[in-house]
Amino acid sequence: MKVTLKHVAEKAGVSRSAVSRTFTPGASVSAATRELVMQAAKELGYTPSILASGLSTGRTKLIGLVSNNFKNPYFLEIFDRFTRALQGRGLRPLLVNLSDETQSGDWARILRQYSVDGVVVASSTLPPDFSTAFAEAGLPVVHAFARHLRRPDVNTVGVDNVEVGRLAARELHARGYRRVTFLGGPETATSTIDRNRGFIETASTLGGMVAATHFSGNYSFDAGFTAMTDLLRQGSPCEAYFCGDDVISIGAMSALKENGFETPGDVGILGVNDMEMAHWQNIRLTTIHQPVGAIVDAVISRLATLMENPEDPARAICLDAHVVERDTLRKPV
Amino acid sequence: MKVTLKHVAEKAGVSRSAVSRTFTPGASVSAATRELVMQAAKELGYTPSILASGLSTGRTKLIGLVSNNFKNPYFLEIFDRFTRALQGRGLRPLLVNLSDETQSGDWARILRQYSVDGVVVASSTLPPDFSTAFAEAGLPVVHAFARHLRRPDVNTVGVDNVEVGRLAARELHARGYRRVTFLGGPETATSTIDRNRGFIETASTLGGMVAATHFSGNYSFDAGFTAMTDLLRQGSPCEAYFCGDDVISIGAMSALKENGFETPGDVGILGVNDMEMAHWQNIRLTTIHQPVGAIVDAVISRLATLMENPEDPARAICLDAHVVERDTLRKPV
Repeated sequence: MKVTLKHVAEKAGVSRSAVSRTFTPGASVSAATRELVMQAAKELGYTPSILASGLSTGRTKLIGLVSNNFKNPYFLEIFDRFTRALQGRGLRPLLVNLSDETQSGDWARILRQYSVDGVVVASSTLPPDFSTAFAEAGLPVVHAFARHLRRPDVNTVGVDNVEVGRLAARELHARGYRRVTFLGGPETATSTIDRNRGFIETASTLGGMVAATHFSGNYSFDAGFTAMTDLLRQGSPCEAYFCGDDVISIGAMSALKENGFETPGDVGILGVNDMEMAHWQNIRLTTIHQPVGAIVDAVISRLATLMENPEDPARAICLDAHVVERDTLRKPV
Repeated sequence: MKVTLKHVAEKAGVSRSAVSRTFTPGASVSAATRELVMQAAKELGYTPSILASGLSTGRTKLIGLVSNNFKNPYFLEIFDRFTRALQGRGLRPLLVNLSDETQSGDWARILRQYSVDGVVVASSTLPPDFSTAFAEAGLPVVHAFARHLRRPDVNTVGVDNVEVGRLAARELHARGYRRVTFLGGPETATSTIDRNRGFIETASTLGGMVAATHFSGNYSFDAGFTAMTDLLRQGSPCEAYFCGDDVISIGAMSALKENGFETPGDVGILGVNDMEMAHWQNIRLTTIHQPVGAIVDAVISRLATLMENPEDPARAICLDAHVVERDTLRKPV
């Protein structure tokens, strides 16, 4: 049986409130009552609850960690980093798996019921207004991998995906690729919309470049494999694909190989993220590195600030991405 | 500012205990006091806290989800399944990343402070006595992927890894492989110790089979790649490798390929787990399927029973594993 405050109160012969006050730093309780409570707690093996003191102080050290991508191995790295960083500050992640939900309202209510001290949203597919429901519920919230906006309504940390798209177009152009395609993630994902915009805009300004767009069902191997298989059914591959992320790249390369095309001999592939797997010897993906370590650090540090100053105006923290060269694009011309 | 019980008490002009009782199902509070509290709560936008009622009822619906493997993509599938299953029952996972810790004592204390209703340990590398600290702290605990024991001290769900090792030896023998090696995970992991034992024991009973053992640093691509690279430096590969898990298999195959060996043409590879990635078109790993869906369901159902009957004796639930044939072993002879 879990020993509760109630058991201690009964054993000590005092009110539950007296037990609660005994374990609340700074709360008023007589020395005699405190003595009775401590003795009963000791005998029963009662652990003073963080939740009990949280009810008075408003601090539970619980942080909602909300995500909707449990199919992309990149997110295991992200969860690893977030949980370590939170634990390093004595904070405890309450993990929320959104699955296919895109409504935050219910979760804002649930996380408030748990008196979380703050919320981290980790998603590159949800729009920024997903996170405003948490802010409106009075919860400090930072959205990691969010769309970058100059004047955000909510705190965000990530890269500017329009800039990532521009970088991709310039990189492919510098390597002599002219007929190129953005093989994106889902059409509704902010990261895909923004990367596509920057890619197509910049490609149109670069001499001789012709850029197309094709979307995948989601950020996963299967989606990348299926999308590339569909493209190859329609005709020959183009010269190079800028893929929505690394795991789509790996799926696309696998479909190319199935159809007898070599990378980078026949077709170039450029990813985004630089997940662990991108360096695996059997993959060696050339990709645009997202500074995930710096993103996680900035999120946690921003969240800590908001927990101290809930009224601090929303800010968008934007970090730089850069190309990591491996073996899936040919050398610059 | 987060609105707490204290604010409501002050606004209503009643004690904190009165506010707490108002929101605790079945607790005694006068109609007049309840009215004052409800009015103040409404005006302040106060959400009755699950934690507040948890202090009285002993139920928070928080479940500690404890794991030590955030490097193996298989665990993203496992976290996906556990979080969905818990949420489906209205339970909330408090995620604990053990990193390299192998001591559970501090975490038992911390999870007790959060008044979790139960604990799921998800690890195939920690010994069963890791989980006893939670049980001893009065927390219902189920250890998933634990070593299977006939008379367990703690509740476990998983496969019998000795049996998995036996199955692997028989499978390789049936396909005509004679000189074979178990390329395990870490030497200290219970899953590796047990798979090795079953594999070596059974191989010694099968005509003409000669089996060796080699360990990797952990369950990861890099560890499998490094271990196989080391083996190839020492001499020619053997006929087939039974690998500690799928991600080690993928690392090992990559090292074989780097060194000019084809799978299954030159060398056979058999994995364990049947993670998502095992079916990827560029991998198509023949592997021993762990029934992860059934394991997760059994864990959650067992935990629910323990939450009702904490005194229910510890039980070991053992599920069957089977070989899934893909493209990394030659056909049976």
